[in-house]
Amino acid sequence: MSDTATLAFDEMGSPASALGFSAIGVHAGFRPDPERLDMALVVADEPAAAAATFTTNVFCAAPVRVSREHLAESGTGAPAYGCARAVVINSGIANAATGEVGLENARKTAELVGEAVGCPADEVLVASTGVIGQHLRLEPFAAGVPAALAAMATADSSQERADQGVSAARAIMTTDTRPKHGAVSFAGDDIGYPGATFTVSGMAKGAGMIMPNMATMIAVITTDAPLLAPDLSAALVAAVNRSFNKVTVDSDTSTNDTCFALASGAAAPDGPAFAPGTPAYERFCEALDCLCTTLARAMAADGEGATRLITVTVRGAATAEDADAAARTVANSPLVKTAVYGHDANWGRVAAALGRSGARFNQEDVDIDILGLPVCRAGLVVDFDEEEALRRFEAPEVAIEADLHAGEESATMWTCDFSHDYVTINGDYRS
Amino acid sequence: MSDTATLAFDEMGSPASALGFSAIGVHAGFRPDPERLDMALVVADEPAAAAATFTTNVFCAAPVRVSREHLAESGTGAPAYGCARAVVINSGIANAATGEVGLENARKTAELVGEAVGCPADEVLVASTGVIGQHLRLEPFAAGVPAALAAMATADSSQERADQGVSAARAIMTTDTRPKHGAVSFAGDDIGYPGATFTVSGMAKGAGMIMPNMATMIAVITTDAPLLAPDLSAALVAAVNRSFNKVTVDSDTSTNDTCFALASGAAAPDGPAFAPGTPAYERFCEALDCLCTTLARAMAADGEGATRLITVTVRGAATAEDADAAARTVANSPLVKTAVYGHDANWGRVAAALGRSGARFNQEDVDIDILGLPVCRAGLVVDFDEEEALRRFEAPEVAIEADLHAGEESATMWTCDFSHDYVTINGDYRS
Repeated sequence: MSDTATLAFDEMGSPASALGFSAIGVHAGFRPDPERLDMALVVADEPAAAAATFTTNVFCAAPVRVSREHLAESGTGAPAYGCARAVVINSGIANAATGEVGLENARKTAELVGEAVGCPADEVLVASTGVIGQHLRLEPFAAGVPAALAAMATADSSQERADQGVSAARAIMTTDTRPKHGAVSFAGDDIGYPGATFTVSGMAKGAGMIMPNMATMIAVITTDAPLLAPDLSAALVAAVNRSFNKVTVDSDTSTNDTCFALASGAAAPDGPAFAPGTPAYERFCEALDCLCTTLARAMAADGEGATRLITVTVRGAATAEDADAAARTVANSPLVKTAVYGHDANWGRVAAALGRSGARFNQEDVDIDILGLPVCRAGLVVDFDEEEALRRFEAPEVAIEADLHAGEESATMWTCDFSHDYVTINGDYRS
Repeated sequence: MSDTATLAFDEMGSPASALGFSAIGVHAGFRPDPERLDMALVVADEPAAAAATFTTNVFCAAPVRVSREHLAESGTGAPAYGCARAVVINSGIANAATGEVGLENARKTAELVGEAVGCPADEVLVASTGVIGQHLRLEPFAAGVPAALAAMATADSSQERADQGVSAARAIMTTDTRPKHGAVSFAGDDIGYPGATFTVSGMAKGAGMIMPNMATMIAVITTDAPLLAPDLSAALVAAVNRSFNKVTVDSDTSTNDTCFALASGAAAPDGPAFAPGTPAYERFCEALDCLCTTLARAMAADGEGATRLITVTVRGAATAEDADAAARTVANSPLVKTAVYGHDANWGRVAAALGRSGARFNQEDVDIDILGLPVCRAGLVVDFDEEEALRRFEAPEVAIEADLHAGEESATMWTCDFSHDYVTINGDYRS
């Protein structure tokens, strides 16, 4: 789709990489362990264009409602965009299933951050992840936010600022085993902004759910490209649909899923905003897709108990909906996921999932490849080298590809295998 | 719904319980272990009214196609009914993904059984369960069918005939840990058939899928009540929708799922057929529901690696579709199933599943009970006695109940917990 050759990816990037933003993670006190970072703060030097996507779960948490209000979203599913100066995220408590008290606490959090940063409360976006049904305490914010701002102010090197940005990615982790962050840059020379370099940077946390937490997909994207909020929103919605919405760890969507994007314009302070249809906007969308896809794949690979990243690609579907349903059903199948855990190129389970997905096709037409090995052609078994399959299962990523030969549409989903550790992590009693 | 107090349930019943039928399981040679029964034969003394429901999976196996043809089904999903003398089921090989050769083998199986029984091939119904992608051998049928008929003919006591019926239930097992069979009887006195007693009997095998098998839900129901095939079909479709279609072990539907029902009329050879709208037909439907529900619950309780039967009931849904979607989403949630395995009354996972199910409701209205304990009221946490919850988790059945307070509709689904053994069973490499 995109000419990613012109994009430079920085694995050590973070929300602090884009010009005009600072980011940091601190231990504020939501978690008992003083070594554990539990609050992330992302601050824009000036009010930034902002956009967001939120969970569609009917049970949505208080911070989701408050952030929706702050971005003037007219309702669930409608585009949410506006203006923001800061994003604050706590881990440890989800502030979900907390009723009116929870809403009040989320609003007070925004007020507290707004006062410290020097902006109206409705320019503060909030997100939470952790235990449900417990009320958010405000004391950790009262201590953590000033400490975070003070540390940002005293950072005296670009390395220290970069390290602070990565610490923000650590502070939002729950069951994640590693932080997820990065940055993509592209030159302005060919797109009407000679001499400028633009960066799209961000962080995310994983999508598995763990007891007693309802772990949540949360991402924060920052960019120094100049964009109007509605255009940023359109790009974000499209990128999220192609990335985070294509990840499934255990087929659940959480009460707190949130993706924020903020654009400072600081890399081209005098230039016009990137307008849809221009090469600049196209390049920005490519960079945003690249970053979101990288973070999404990292989320899938870090699913609870995961030993393998699984990439499911369905081609030749009659419609885009069929392609998505087929890929999603395969990616959500516990039988497919346990087969991958067992290093078994069990295409029958892939076929059964395709067959019940609702996608329209004839079984006599279907081809399936696992790890690049043809295992099914025209709906029939193909003899394959099982030793070679076992060798290929040693790789960290397992590709499952199906061609339905029913049309031209395709879709890709990312997931992970189902291991004994998944059951252990999710089956251990809360304590 | 039904007055089941007048129904007598016999746990030792089998397809041989209803008058006019014989049933047996033998070792025919599909499996290497000579001790393992691998072929079941159910024979009606006379041509019987017959009906069936089949998998809706696009990948459907050859025996499904052939049995559909024999019951003159006009297409997938259309009612399938007609006339049958015999049902033959093999375990060990699924005859799925076998193309034209598989269809030919399924047809030859029906011919072989028809010749031995003395009926046209199209009065023989066939089903298979086991490994996919392997061709069915006909030699085991050639040896097993005459042996089965000979054993039926020499059975000289009702106990021996009953034991043979139970052996049929053993012969169709794959990953099932126990056979599933039973019979329900009701008197004809109050329904216009004085002095008569009617029996609805049957067997089933489980719905989990296991490598390298695509294990399959297969059920055979026999009754000595007099019914015309279309009326039997209508009763069967309704009963299957309320029982087998409400069971989910791992959200997969197999390529081979099949439920047959045969009615001999032998308990009222001179009486008129039970006609829809009459008390007799109503009572028959109650008995059929009772048997199918019992077999379905047994299937869920015997899911691969299961330690607990889970019954999910959703009430107060706006529509029947909403109720079904909500109950099904909870029952399919790996997070709910691992929580039950961990004896954790984790209602947040139930709420999250309800919230993403597509059912329409307000989170502020939702009540959830687990094991009879109120754990959520009006969408908020309820403090409950965790020690008491742990005690209740010792029971073999775990009830999860939700009231959406959005309407009058309800639905019940049965499933089992997700254990380490599920991963072990489904993750071990084929060997």
